This record gives sequence, C-alpha cells and structure tokens, in this order.
Amino acid sequence: MNPTLRQVLDEVLERVVPSQQERERVRAVTELVRTLVVDEVDRTSMDVAVEVGGSVAKDTWLSGDVDIDIFLLFPKGVSRKELGELGLGIAKRAFSGYRQRERYAEHPYLEAWVKGIRVNIVPCYKTGRGHWLSAADRSPYHTQYVVEKLKVKQPTDDIRVFKKFAKGIGAYGAEIRVQGLSGYLCELLILHYGSFQKTLNAISSWQFGEVIDPERLYQGRAEEARRLFSSPLIVIDPVDQKRNVAAAVSRDRMAELIAATRLFLESPSRSFFYPEDLEVSQDLLRRMFSSLGYDVIAIEIRAGEEVPDILWGELLKTKNALRRLLEANDFVVLRSDIWSDEAESSVMVFGLETRTLSKIKRHLGPPGDTDGVTPFLEKHAIEAATGPWVEEGRWVAGVRRRYASAESLLKDKLSDGGRDLGVSKGLFEALASSRLLVGPEVLSLCAKEGFPQFLMRFLEGRPRWLPPHQSSSPSGSSS
Amino acid sequence: MNPTLRQVLDEVLERVVPSQQERERVRAVTELVRTLVVDEVDRTSMDVAVEVGGSVAKDTWLSGDVDIDIFLLFPKGVSRKELGELGLGIAKRAFSGYRQRERYAEHPYLEAWVKGIRVNIVPCYKTGRGHWLSAADRSPYHTQYVVEKLKVKQPTDDIRVFKKFAKGIGAYGAEIRVQGLSGYLCELLILHYGSFQKTLNAISSWQFGEVIDPERLYQGRAEEARRLFSSPLIVIDPVDQKRNVAAAVSRDRMAELIAATRLFLESPSRSFFYPEDLEVSQDLLRRMFSSLGYDVIAIEIRAGEEVPDILWGELLKTKNALRRLLEANDFVVLRSDIWSDEAESSVMVFGLETRTLSKIKRHLGPPGDTDGVTPFLEKHAIEAATGPWVEEGRWVAGVRRRYASAESLLKDKLSDGGRDLGVSKGLFEALASSRLLVGPEVLSLCAKEGFPQFLMRFLEGRPRWLPPHQSSSPSGSSS
Repeated sequence: MNPTLRQVLDEVLERVVPSQQERERVRAVTELVRTLVVDEVDRTSMDVAVEVGGSVAKDTWLSGDVDIDIFLLFPKGVSRKELGELGLGIAKRAFSGYRQRERYAEHPYLEAWVKGIRVNIVPCYKTGRGHWLSAADRSPYHTQYVVEKLKVKQPTDDIRVFKKFAKGIGAYGAEIRVQGLSGYLCELLILHYGSFQKTLNAISSWQFGEVIDPERLYQGRAEEARRLFSSPLIVIDPVDQKRNVAAAVSRDRMAELIAATRLFLESPSRSFFYPEDLEVSQDLLRRMFSSLGYDVIAIEIRAGEEVPDILWGELLKTKNALRRLLEANDFVVLRSDIWSDEAESSVMVFGLETRTLSKIKRHLGPPGDTDGVTPFLEKHAIEAATGPWVEEGRWVAGVRRRYASAESLLKDKLSDGGRDLGVSKGLFEALASSRLLVGPEVLSLCAKEGFPQFLMRFLEGRPRWLPPHQSSSPSGSSS
Repeated sequence: MNPTLRQVLDEVLERVVPSQQERERVRAVTELVRTLVVDEVDRTSMDVAVEVGGSVAKDTWLSGDVDIDIFLLFPKGVSRKELGELGLGIAKRAFSGYRQRERYAEHPYLEAWVKGIRVNIVPCYKTGRGHWLSAADRSPYHTQYVVEKLKVKQPTDDIRVFKKFAKGIGAYGAEIRVQGLSGYLCELLILHYGSFQKTLNAISSWQFGEVIDPERLYQGRAEEARRLFSSPLIVIDPVDQKRNVAAAVSRDRMAELIAATRLFLESPSRSFFYPEDLEVSQDLLRRMFSSLGYDVIAIEIRAGEEVPDILWGELLKTKNALRRLLEANDFVVLRSDIWSDEAESSVMVFGLETRTLSKIKRHLGPPGDTDGVTPFLEKHAIEAATGPWVEEGRWVAGVRRRYASAESLLKDKLSDGGRDLGVSKGLFEALASSRLLVGPEVLSLCAKEGFPQFLMRFLEGRPRWLPPHQSSSPSGSSS
C-alpha cells in the first residue's frame, strides 16, 4: 500500500528538522567561525562588518546538511578588485588552519571546513537597499526579509521539507552544475504559497515563463517582467524588483521539477526525498554496455581550473558546442552529460543513436525547372559519389560524407583544441590533448571516485525519482 | 574539340532519315499488313474501316526504328467490351502466323511482328471530332492534323531528330514504364516551335506547369488550363481542347528533359542521341558493390500479368508503397527502380543510405509544462529502452525501434503480401512469395537478360547523358 502524503511528510520532517543537540553544535561552530573572522578583520583595521547569513541565520537548514554563510560587508570606497582580494585574504588567513578552497559564484568567495561543517565566507559591499554594487550585497537583505516573514507565518519546517524535496530530485542549487533552486528561492516559494503542499500544487501547473511576484512589484505587469527577464521561471526578488531570484533555473530543471511534483502528488513516496542508493559495479556496467542499443562516446580532458564554478561553465559551454558539432554532422545525440572531479579530470559523455553513419548521404538539389540545375549538375556530375538523379521533380545526389564516424569527426576537430567550434577558450589546450573513449572503453574511467555512479545514471538516462527500468536487457524486439 | 550543333545535327540526320530503299521496304510491309487486316475484316462482314496511322502515315519515323500503326475504326453501336473483343479477335486472326502479344494503353490492342517490324493493331470508334468514345478515337484526327501541317511547313526531319534526342535521353514513350513524350507530342512540339533548335531553346526554360497551346484554344486562359489538367507539362491537343497530350509526362522525366536540353545546347554532343553502350560484367558489378558506400536491397517477384502495361502500373504503385514503408520506418531511400522481363520475373530495387538503423531511437515527447507530461512519463517509465529525460524543456525517451533492419521490415510486412501497405492488389500473392536480396546477393539475378545493364545503370544512378563517374572507387574521404 502506498503511504499517504501525511505519512511521507511526517517521516521526512522527523529527519530534516534538527534536534536541540544539533542546533547547539551548529550554534557553537557558527560562533567559533564568526570569532575567527572578526579577529582577522580586526587585525586589518578596516571598516568591515561581519554578519552570519544564509540558512543558519534564518533557521531553515536541514539536519545533517548545513552550511554556515559568513558575509564580510566592505565599505563602498573599496574597488571590485580589492573587494575580492581583501575579502579572500581575510578569509584565507582566518581559516589558515582549515581545509579551504576558493570558489566563484558571481564573484569569488572562500569555502572552508570547520569541524565537519562547510563555511562560505563571502565578501560584499555594505550598501543601501537598491544601491547594490555586487551580487552578494543583496544577501543581508534577503536574510532580513525571510526572518521578518517567518516571524509572522511559521512555515519553517515546510521550507526544510521543500528544500529536501528539491535536493532529492536533483533540483537544489543555483550553481551552474545544477541550474536549480537556490535556498533563498525555496524559502520565497514556501512563504509565497504558504505551505509545502500548496507549493507543490502550484508548481505542478507551472508553465514556462511563469511569473511569481511575492511583493506584487509588477502587479498587472507580468508581461513586462517576462520581457525583462526572459527566463523559464521568473521570481521577482522582494528586495529588488530588478532581480529574478530564479535566473539560474534552467528550462530542463524546471521541467523536471514540474513533472516530479505531479508524480509525487499523484503517488507520494519517500523516494522523492531519499532516492535509493545506486548499486553500481564494473560488472553491472559492463553488462549494461553490452545490451545498450545505442553508442556512447566520452572525451576525457585534464582541466586544471582552480575555481570549480568557472570550470563547470567552461565544460557546459564546451559540451554544448561539441553536441552541436555532432548534430551538424547528422549524428543523433540522445543525451549528453558532464562529470568532473573539479581538480584533475573532467569527462564529457555523449549518447548517440549510432556513432557510424552511411558513407554516402542523400543531398537534395534544386527543383528541375530552376536556374540552379545546371550548376548543380556540373558540380555533382564530377563530385557526387552516386547520381545525380531526379526525384519528384528535384535533382538529388548521393554525396560522400566528410565524417561517417563520430570518432573521426571529434578527433579531427579537436586536434587543434576545437578552436572553431565555439568551445570554451580556457579548454583549448586540454581538448587538444584529450582522450576519446568509445563504448565499453569508457569503463576504464571507473577508477575515478564517483564516476561509476555518474556513468550508471547516464546509462539509465532518467531522473532517479522515476521508477527504475524493469530490466536493462533488450526485450520484445522484432528486429 | 567539341563539335558544333550543326555538325552534330548533320551526323544525326544522316542516320535518322530513312533511305529510299528502307522507305520502299516499310511501304511494302505496310501494304502487306493492311491487306491482312482488311481481308480479316471482310471475313466478319462488319462495317469496320482500316486505316494506317502513326509515324508511317505521317512520314515521321526513324530509320531502323519503325512501328506500323493500324487502326480498326468500329461503328458507334458496338459496346466498349465488344470493341476490345472484336478488335483483338480480328487482329489475332489476321496475324495468326506471326509472333504477337496483347498490350494495353488506355484500352487493349495487339502487337505483332511482321518481317522484323512491329505492328500495333488498335481498335477504336469512328466518331465525329469531339465525340470520342475511346481514347484511340482521336488518333486518325491526330494523323490528319500533323499531315496537314506538314504540307505547309516541312520540319519532318527536325521531328525525326527530336524524337531521336528524346529516345537518346530516355524520355521517349508515353507508356507508364517511361512516362515520357509520345511520338505525337514530339511532332506537336516541333510544329509549334518551328525547328529542333527552337524547340530545345524553349524546353531549356520550361517550368513545371508549362502550358503549350498550338491552336490557341485557351488563349488568355492559361491558368484555367493549368487548373483543369494539373500536370507538370500541359500541351493542349489541337484536335481536342479537353485533352492534355503531355498527360503521361512525369515531373521527373520533364526535369531530365529540361536539364538535358540545357547541357546539350551548352555543349552539343552525339552522346545525347546515341548513348555509349554500357560495358557490363559480373566482375565490374561485383567491384562496384564492394565500394558502393550505400546499401542495395532488391525484391524479386514472379508476376504473370499478361499485359505489360498493367504489370508496369502495378509494379510502380507497389514500388512507391514500399518506398513509403521504408521511409516511414526511418530508412533513407536514395533511389528506387524497377526491372521486369514483362513475363516471369520482376525486380524492385532500393538504394538505402543504410539498411541497418540504431536499435534505439530518439523519441520526442511533450514540452515540460503541458498536460501531456504525466501520460508520457507513465508510458515511457515502463516502455522506454532508455530515459525518459528532459532536453531543452521537452521530455525525450529512447525507444526501441520496431524494425532496425530493412530486411526484417520488408520480410515481416510482405509475409501477407503487403495488404496494408497500399501495394497493388494484383501483386499480393507474388509479394507473399517474393525473394529478398541484399547487397551483392542482387548479382544472382544477372542471368536474366538485360538485368546486368539495368543494375549497372541503377548503381551509376545518373542519366546516361551525364558524363560517367571518374571512378567507382571511394576517394578523398577523411573518415
């Protein structure tokens, strides 16, 4: 028997609402972190305020899954360049004894690990509302807005459940790797619609170009908002009518979110929040490859970009360019995806209907009663591999394909780093020395941590909240 | 150095204008044939007139290539059924000692061979102009029209040259096998435009929907003629404004005619009139197959239809239906053609980009914000071979093809004679026991007379008036 919505939510609540003990621990670490930063700021004798923001400040974090966000508010006199350098300098020194990594959203910030908790130290400007100088300047106002709203209504736990839902279906995170919902966006949606269930009801009938405007800043002017932001999902920031909080949400992530809410409401299940662990083994993957029915090609590159978000942007741009290249040469791309360890190795994977095409291709020429006929015949009498001939009044020739195999296409085009393909400039070198893997050769990458799980998901090719395939062996084909 | 137009025409004239001796021989055979028919008519005591028609009556026949057309003009009281039976009866008895075969254009007629010359005996009605009862009733009026016109102008030899040109490029003959120009149509064009060169000049700028109206029966009403006949080429019959003399001309044949005239005028050559003999050998064909670059599939059927023109109609309809079947299943058909010995064996040949497709096919589903999403996901969560996944906001699934090979498709669909495919009813049985031949297997048909030449032309895939391919081996491919 399927569980009811209430049963599922109760179970999720029990797991996502932090215990008193966990709250204490997070509060203690937050205080430690704040002190470390404040002390470092004091050493600089600069006028920089230190504020705790994010889900900790708003009490909307999930049990077992918390980030501490610390904002460094600089005075406006500091230049953008200085802001990054000074902010990162303070952060790096404050956490010199801790594991740390530079990151990048709309400008650089530092990620550090303190007692097992991830801390983000984000430099920004202390500005008046609406006078933003950097993207992060709005954050303190976001925190303030949510805290104020939560004082009135109290859907804090619904926020936690909704965040967990978004995480469970792979739609949480505004970073380019995910292109999903930020924490702030999740909070706004729950505050706007009132509860988890109402939010899901609303999402299930969202349409591309949806405009959500909690503070009615565009009342009666939804079309104007649509024109201004031209995103699949538009959520007007209550603290800044010029900003779409959902700007990072891709059309694909939005479509998945809509579908997942529909299926969840129709048949509630914990698996939307807690997808089952993938059972992956070399042997299972090998068997999947042998009964795949389509072709897989992977390009492994050694990419040393220090900032993961920049790397992901480059990989995404490059993957899309290579996909266009394949399609322009008549290869039908089923799916494409990216794996990266964000340090040494990144892999772009393409699923193709077939990696080999006919050597000769039907090439449609001019209608038989037009001026184009003579030049077409003169050209193709010499160049055509077969023909030309007439068909339904039009001249046609069979021309030899320049690339009948996807490997030869990619090898040839990547030999110079793919300079003419619209790939990311930062990857020219890595692409020129990239490695091409075809079919089961891709299994040789499985030594990389996390790659087998990625590959498994790629081959499965469906969101994890959909029921798994009955069998990965070919079935019931008459061909 | 290329010959001039005048040089080419002089050479052709020398060969197509019959000598006095040949004229004498044809006149003698015509007289013999007429006598045989008249005698047989006399034995029936019916009121049937016997008339010599066609190119012999008009003196527009080609040296070495003459048919004698004899018309049996029946009174109007005879029914259509009787017309055929009585006419064929007389003809068969008149030529009982000669090789003969029943044929069919718009109604049945008899073909007989007398002293090496083909004789067509065509029953029709003796009607007043415009009161036609059968298609052949116009013929005596056609003969009369052309003879009268030729008395005034004298482009008889230009008619011969033009007919030879049409024959040389494979565009001569109104039968369904050819879908080209009838002798009468060739005569009308020369009479209308005035000379061979003027006719070619005109044809070279023909457009689909061209209206030629020698007697100006539709003056100022070309659009009306176009609407009435809706053929690619419309030539209003001077003896019947309701008839398009060019009704049999297909769009493809017209396109070839236009192209051939352009190339001929640009660079005159005897090869348009006298295409070089194809050098064909099993060995050459085998080598062509080995470097083809595309796939060939043939279906051989045993079809015993007695009347070739009916058989060709059935074969054409069936070939087109099978072509549509292949295309509906994603096979890209380069070319298709028909060979038949018109007695025992007929072969439909298809050139395909590939005869094997991917096992799995990209199947585009509904946009992610529509009502179709839930049903699509419910169906494809179970049925898809891979996926479903989202791509640019749309759901997509990888579905297993029902037919990944052209052989399995054809075998399966033809096992019941192809009853649901729109093939010709008359071929159901022959199709059910047809033989499928793939690639070089087609060579096994080369014992049939004329098949090697047909196959050679099919593989070459271009009109014979285009210069031949430099080489049939693959060249300059980077893949």
